[in-house]
Parts: sequence; structure tokens; C-alpha cells
Amino acid sequence: MDRHADILITGGLVLTMDDEDRTIPDGAVAVSGDIIAAVDDAAGFEGWRVDRTVDARGGIIMPGLVNVHTHAAMTCFRGLADDLPLMTWLNDHIFPAEATLDREKVATGTALACAEMILSGTTCFCDMYLFEDAVAETARRAGMRAVVGEVLFDFPSPAYGPLRKGFEKTQALIDQWRKDPLIRIAVEPHSPYLCAPDLLKKAGDTALKNDCLLVTHLSETRNEVDQIQKTYGRTPIAHMAELGLLGPHLLACHCVVLTASDRTLLARYDVKVAHNPESNMKLASGIAPIPQLLDAGVCVGLGTDGCSSNNDLDMLLEMDTAAKLHKVANLDPTVMDARTVLRMATIEGARALGLDGITGSLAPGKQADVIIVDTEKPHLQPMFQPTSHLVYAARGSDVAFVMIAGRVVMENGAVFTIDVDRAIREVNRIARGLR
Amino acid sequence: MDRHADILITGGLVLTMDDEDRTIPDGAVAVSGDIIAAVDDAAGFEGWRVDRTVDARGGIIMPGLVNVHTHAAMTCFRGLADDLPLMTWLNDHIFPAEATLDREKVATGTALACAEMILSGTTCFCDMYLFEDAVAETARRAGMRAVVGEVLFDFPSPAYGPLRKGFEKTQALIDQWRKDPLIRIAVEPHSPYLCAPDLLKKAGDTALKNDCLLVTHLSETRNEVDQIQKTYGRTPIAHMAELGLLGPHLLACHCVVLTASDRTLLARYDVKVAHNPESNMKLASGIAPIPQLLDAGVCVGLGTDGCSSNNDLDMLLEMDTAAKLHKVANLDPTVMDARTVLRMATIEGARALGLDGITGSLAPGKQADVIIVDTEKPHLQPMFQPTSHLVYAARGSDVAFVMIAGRVVMENGAVFTIDVDRAIREVNRIARGLR
Ligand SMILES: [Zn+2]
Ligand SMILES: [Zn+2]
Repeated sequence: MDRHADILITGGLVLTMDDEDRTIPDGAVAVSGDIIAAVDDAAGFEGWRVDRTVDARGGIIMPGLVNVHTHAAMTCFRGLADDLPLMTWLNDHIFPAEATLDREKVATGTALACAEMILSGTTCFCDMYLFEDAVAETARRAGMRAVVGEVLFDFPSPAYGPLRKGFEKTQALIDQWRKDPLIRIAVEPHSPYLCAPDLLKKAGDTALKNDCLLVTHLSETRNEVDQIQKTYGRTPIAHMAELGLLGPHLLACHCVVLTASDRTLLARYDVKVAHNPESNMKLASGIAPIPQLLDAGVCVGLGTDGCSSNNDLDMLLEMDTAAKLHKVANLDPTVMDARTVLRMATIEGARALGLDGITGSLAPGKQADVIIVDTEKPHLQPMFQPTSHLVYAARGSDVAFVMIAGRVVMENGAVFTIDVDRAIREVNRIARGLR
Repeated sequence: MDRHADILITGGLVLTMDDEDRTIPDGAVAVSGDIIAAVDDAAGFEGWRVDRTVDARGGIIMPGLVNVHTHAAMTCFRGLADDLPLMTWLNDHIFPAEATLDREKVATGTALACAEMILSGTTCFCDMYLFEDAVAETARRAGMRAVVGEVLFDFPSPAYGPLRKGFEKTQALIDQWRKDPLIRIAVEPHSPYLCAPDLLKKAGDTALKNDCLLVTHLSETRNEVDQIQKTYGRTPIAHMAELGLLGPHLLACHCVVLTASDRTLLARYDVKVAHNPESNMKLASGIAPIPQLLDAGVCVGLGTDGCSSNNDLDMLLEMDTAAKLHKVANLDPTVMDARTVLRMATIEGARALGLDGITGSLAPGKQADVIIVDTEKPHLQPMFQPTSHLVYAARGSDVAFVMIAGRVVMENGAVFTIDVDRAIREVNRIARGLR
């Protein structure tokens, strides 16, 4: 080791989220280029040459949060319509609003979403939407790590036209971004209820051939399960199994309505699950059997879903809701303990995206995706257990510092990679057009 | 009207929460002494003499939030123990910690709680705990409006000794604070499972005689209901009815486990209900049938409960949880719409405390309990509906200004009435003693 660091983040309580769940009370993280060079007691870095020191005293130094499921550009529709029956909400509000989108609007909505995510400690997100070329470029410019994929379905898309072009676009995105250090492309058929078996199979083939994540909505509502059951004679999970699409590279978003044999299938094929409790609650979809999936050994990451069904992208708050919801649903205060939930928002989220070798924990050799949560605030005092505070008391605004791939993208509320005022101005122009 | 205001809060979107639910896009609130002098379009105040103008542009001007149930001093135990079976949590952690409390520690924990509440927009709270003389004094010094009462139960209290002294203390508190503009004293027997019928009846008599609120925990868990059923042959609500204690001055905290006839009794006697969804979730108590209570015409206010079962006092986040929880519990996205929930945290909360003539909405003649929520932030843009943002997207840290009874107690994160650094320092000393 050459005992040199470009940046030394030091003096805080380091929560590594590594395999040993190592916590270092007065610790430091040394960053060299885009890589974590070392994680140790602050005192262990005496004698190092350091270009810049970041003072983390009074804070928790931890891996950036991973949001495994969102539709970033839906910030444009935040609070456009709430508290409505699902079909009224979709047909009378969301779909008409989405029909007005174009590439530029998606870029604007995504820029605002990236600002919100960075400000609340998210360093990596997985996105599904229209015009994902704009999402990839915007996230890249914001310096965020992202897995993005153009949404595919049975009908023509405002973004690419006929389905054939959707697959061409997906392949083009894969080729274009293959060597990028931050952006990965996924193949993203919307769901079994909007995608015929041929589409799903072709998507699965494309993902396998290109070594990409396959992302889809799956078993989100009772209504969807009934419809798939009626059409195909099996549950959505069994339908995907029948098509040969279950596997470790599949990220199944929601998984709210599951049978026991669905759960067994998800575990057997090492399918990854994106859990979005606030969206499932707000849309009244139901409560996903997450403790049961965890017991079965399924890898579950945490997501916010899009802003129109949440209505924010705050992963610290999502953790709080996840921890509490399953306790009351199971009438058992011991399920979904704080550590389990924090792992879902960091290393398990990274694993769900196939990025656990790269991000989700603080360990030498991994990408330097690091945040500091400032705990010197009345609502985070006293502190007996940092994990408890992160899950049950902290909120996005407590994040004081964000580094992604060794680059400082936010400090004390200032985002360095996005023109936030401009994003707000432009998203308001879009909103005026929708009123 | 003399067209003079001590303070004019102007330029924001005014959400009055009054009977007409009046919203004024570019509005202002004129404050004279501790009273709201006028609420109108900002332009309507041209020509007024104003001593101080508060610029609320880009913000929502609204009534301060009302937290109808907490144990403020439990900030000392924030995150001390989580994710445990209820009896382990209580017997091995909370009760031993509470046994170490004294008057000074309660004052410290309450000061920290008041700072947290003020910073997150709460202007009024209802408290139940030990050493409530210290709570009353600390809240008063913090400039907060509060309803406080010494907790009474069948065993000796560390605060006052034998029960007889508890009633004497309650009466002394009532007499001492009778004329105070901010503090009201309530009579607060802990619960039917910790209070014999005689205690409850005497508490009820004391409340009636002194025209005070009667506050108690009621029907919080299945276990409690079973125990009361076994001991008295009826539900806790029916037990209170039998004792003649149901009435409009009773604030029943929790009401999670209710029969249909319990609900009817609560409605018939105009009992007020304190709903604490996050605590009920975290302790896995259950989901209170709030939409059903509202349908029956019951007045429900929102509360956080104490910090050891939440673990914060953020009413904006509590609203979010309340709105979402009942949607998923009822599998109906239309229940607990944003407006209903916002009313529970403002005017209905005030009504639950018997203070709706004084606070909970912005109207001429009422006390000037006013906050500004800054919406010029990425996670609150764009804004189609202010109510939606307050419930589904805002968090305590978005509160930029707090006035209570005409006195500015917080601006841009600075609390003027509490030595916050000292409270943090002292609460940490208490925490060190608990480790
Ligand atoms: Zn989705
Ligand atoms: Zn309580």
C-alpha cells in the first residue's frame, strides 16, 4: 500500500455493511481515484499523504444507498393525483400525463430525481421508463451509478415506436454504455400483463446474451395475478418460470401477491426482489411477504418506485416504513430488524442489481460510493445504535456528504453535478403544461 | 380593524385549515400580540403598518402541527432498544431505564423533544409521563403550547410516591397553571390495565371538577384487551363506559383493538381518539380502525407516541405513514386522503385536545400558532397540490419558520427558546449512564 489517498473521510463512525458487519467508532475511509483504498481506525491513517480531508466528526460514514426500483422522471408528476381508485389514477391522470412526455422532459424529470436522490444519500438506482437514453445521459452527468432500461410492452411506445424498435434501442443502449464505469443497461419488459410471452422470452434472451439484468414488474396486485391466472392458468411467477425466465439475473419488482409455491420458485431460482413498501401502501396493492422471502433465502433490495406513487425518493424514510410495516403486518416486533432493513438499502440492494462486487459496502477495492449522515441533530440524539437511527429516525435531509466513484457530488446540501435551480424551473414548466 | 400588525407573514400559499378549507395562493397572515389579526391575500395588507415582515415566498403558511400523544422525555431512550418482543423491550430495557429518571432528566429529555418538535413544525403537544411539573416548565420555557399530566397508576411512582400524592400533585399542577396562556393540565391515568376502577373514577371526577382533559391509553394491544376482558368481563372501552368515564373530554390514546360496539360507544360519547400509527406499527400492536372511526364521526387526532417506539417526533412523517397505512390495510387507495390526514394533524388534533377554539387553524382571533413549510426543494417540486406534498413528500426538516402564540420560536433551523446544544450534551450524559 502506498499510504496515499486522494481523499480521506475521517473522524466519523464507520458502518461498513461488509460481511463481518464491521463498525468502527472513530474510523476513516481512504479513497484513491474511484476506489476505496482502505477502511480503518482514523488513527491508522497517521503518516498517510492525503490530498483532501473530509471531516466526518459527529456523523456516520457509510455506503451510499441503493434504490432498486424507480421511474425517476415521474418527479414531473409528483402529487399530480393521489387518493384515487387505481384505474382512475392511471387512466385519467398518469397515462394522459405520460403521453405528453418527450426526451427532453424525461431528462428534466430525471435531473430533478437525481438531485433529490443525491441529497438524500442515494448513490445508485435502477430505473425503468420511456426515453431511457435520456435517463442514462442525465444520471451519467449527475455522476450517479444507475442501471437503466427502456420499458418494453405490447403496444407502440412514444419513445421508440413499434416493439421491434424497442429491442433495437435496448441493444443500442447496451452497446453504447458497455464500457461505462457508472451506467449499466438492463432489459426491461414492463410486466406479464403488458407483455406477451414472445416479448418476455425475447427480452430474456437479450438479457442473457448481453449479460444484463432483466427487470420487470411482477405480482404487484391481486388484480394482475387474477388476470394472468385467467389468461395463462398460472400465477405471474409460475408464468415466468414456464417461460424459462426465472434466474439470478431477474429483478422482480414488487412481488406483493405470492403463493407459497411462488415464494419457493423465487428462492430456488435465486430471483432478486425489489420491495417498494410505500408505493404498495399508497396504491393499496397489498403487503409483500418480505420476512417470508428473507426466511426462504431470497435476496431483497429496497426501492421507492416512482414519485407519483410515493411521493418522494427518500430511501431513509423508505427503510423506516419497511421496518415498521412488516412488524404490524405480522404482529411481531422482531421481524425486519433495523440491520436487515439497512442491508436491504445497501449491500442487498447492490446484490439485487448484480453490483455487490462494486458498491453497497465499504471495503478496499470497491468503488468509493460513500455518504455521511450527520447525527448531531436533536432528532438523532442520543445515539445508542447507529443502525437504529438510520432506520427509525433519520431522514434524507440528514445526509451531509455524498461521494460516488470517488467524486464528491454533494456537500452540505449543495449538489455539484446538477443545475438544481434549472431542473426545478424546467419541471415547473412541464407541470404548468399538465394543469 | 386598526390595520396594524406586529408581524406580517406574507407571500406564501396560505392553507388556513378553517371550516371552509380556504387556500390563498399569494396570501398573508397578520399577527397582533399573540393573536391572528387577519388572514387575506397579500395584496389586502397594503397600507398596513407592520413592525416586522416575514417573507414566506416559496412556502406554505399553515397552522402549527398538533401532536396529540407523546411522552416527550423519552427522547432520552431514543433507539435504546428496538426490534424486541414487547415484554422484553419493556421489562428489560424501558422500565429499568425509566427507574433511573428524575426531575432534571425529564426536563432535559423534554427540552430535546421540544427542540425536535419545534424544528419539525409542531407547536402544540399532549404529554403523559413522570415529573410532569418539569415537562410543563420546560415546554413553557420553550414557548410551546402543551397539555400535560402526571401519569397515575396503581403502584408508587418515582415522581410522587403513593397514589394519593399523585392526585395531590395533579390538583396542584391544575391550580398552578390554571391561568397560563400556553400550558394546560390534564388528568392522566395510564390505562385500565395499570389503573384500578377506583383510580379511574377518581381521575374522571378530578377532570370533570376542574374542567380538564382526561387522557389515558386505551385498547392499544390484543393482549391488553384480553386481560381486561378476563378481569372485568368486558372490553376496555366498555369498561370505561361502565365506569361512566366516556365523554367528550376523554382522549383515548391508540384504540387499536376495537369491536364494532366499542366504535359505537366512542362515537356516541364523542370520545376523542389519539392515533399513533408509527408506534403501533413498530411495537406490532396492530392497525387502528381509523377510517371506520372517522365514518362513525369520531374526532381523531394524530400523535407520534414516545421516541422509544417511533423513534422520532416528526408529525409530517407521521402523516405520511397514517395516510398510507390505512390504504393498504383496507386495500383501498381512497381512504385517508391527504386532506383528512392533514386535518388530523392540525384542527382535528386541536379539537381532540379541546383547543380548537384556540389553535389548529388560521383564523382571525385565534392564537397565532403559524409555521412556514419551504417547498422550494427538489423533493417538493413541482407542486400540484400543497396538501399532497405536506402529507406524502414533506418531512420535518422542510419547516423553515415556527411561531407560537405570536412569538417566533424558530427560523431557518435556529431555535430561539431552547439551548439545543446544551440539551444534546445533557441527554448524552443521561445516555452514557444508561449504557
Ligand atoms: Zn414500478
Ligand atoms: Zn403512549
